Amino acid sequence: MLSRGKSSPNASLTYLAEGTELEGNLKAKGQVRIDGTVRGSVLVEGELEIGPTGFIEGEQVKAKNAHVQGKVRAAVAVEGKLTLTKSGQLEGDVRARALDIEAGAVFIGRSQTGEVKAALPQPSKTASE
Amino acid sequence: MLSRGKSSPNASLTYLAEGTELEGNLKAKGQVRIDGTVRGSVLVEGELEIGPTGFIEGEQVKAKNAHVQGKVRAAVAVEGKLTLTKSGQLEGDVRARALDIEAGAVFIGRSQTGEVKAALPQPSKTASE
Repeated sequence: MLSRGKSSPNASLTYLAEGTELEGNLKAKGQVRIDGTVRGSVLVEGELEIGPTGFIEGEQVKAKNAHVQGKVRAAVAVEGKLTLTKSGQLEGDVRARALDIEAGAVFIGRSQTGEVKAALPQPSKTASE
Repeated sequence: MLSRGKSSPNASLTYLAEGTELEGNLKAKGQVRIDGTVRGSVLVEGELEIGPTGFIEGEQVKAKNAHVQGKVRAAVAVEGKLTLTKSGQLEGDVRARALDIEAGAVFIGRSQTGEVKAALPQPSKTASE
């Protein structure tokens, strides 16, 4: 998703590589790809891609669109589409216009799709398996 | 510095693009390039590159080697070499095996290069011109 063809980092592209741990909140203007760990919020104005090794655990994850191959445990609010691939694991309330959770994906959380204008969903029931 | 030749983000490369703000601590295994702002510690196992727009303000910045073009305000501990380019501004105590501070660089801090095993040096001599 993220355009990485350039040898130099695109100013709009933010990588958190595997092994990277971010403890804190990440705000990004452009695209963000997270292969590492973020313990904090990730607020991306562009695309957010969580790689298979990516892991976000925080309050919020916001993006234009989000493509989660890794693990997210946060309240996710995506303007557009939230994709959770089969390797993805999403825990947390999700608000997205579209939500695509592939087989194998683990999605625990309350989702709210559609217009995502309203306030963020409150963290209510704990999903139990 | 960071090898971005691959179309996919190398798991060892972490970008914080310009405009990116990280409030919190970043730990990375591979390489890190920061063009954005980090308000927190940056602990990188690999190379750390702070681009001209990069700005780290935190407690610690650790890397294998660090190449600072931007601004760092932290206690920097670099295993290998810390390079501060002419646009670089480094404030904080620095520990590195090697320290290359280019002309024009602003480096305000106490540095300690070499083996970084012992405890931190106490503030002793006050440099006077």
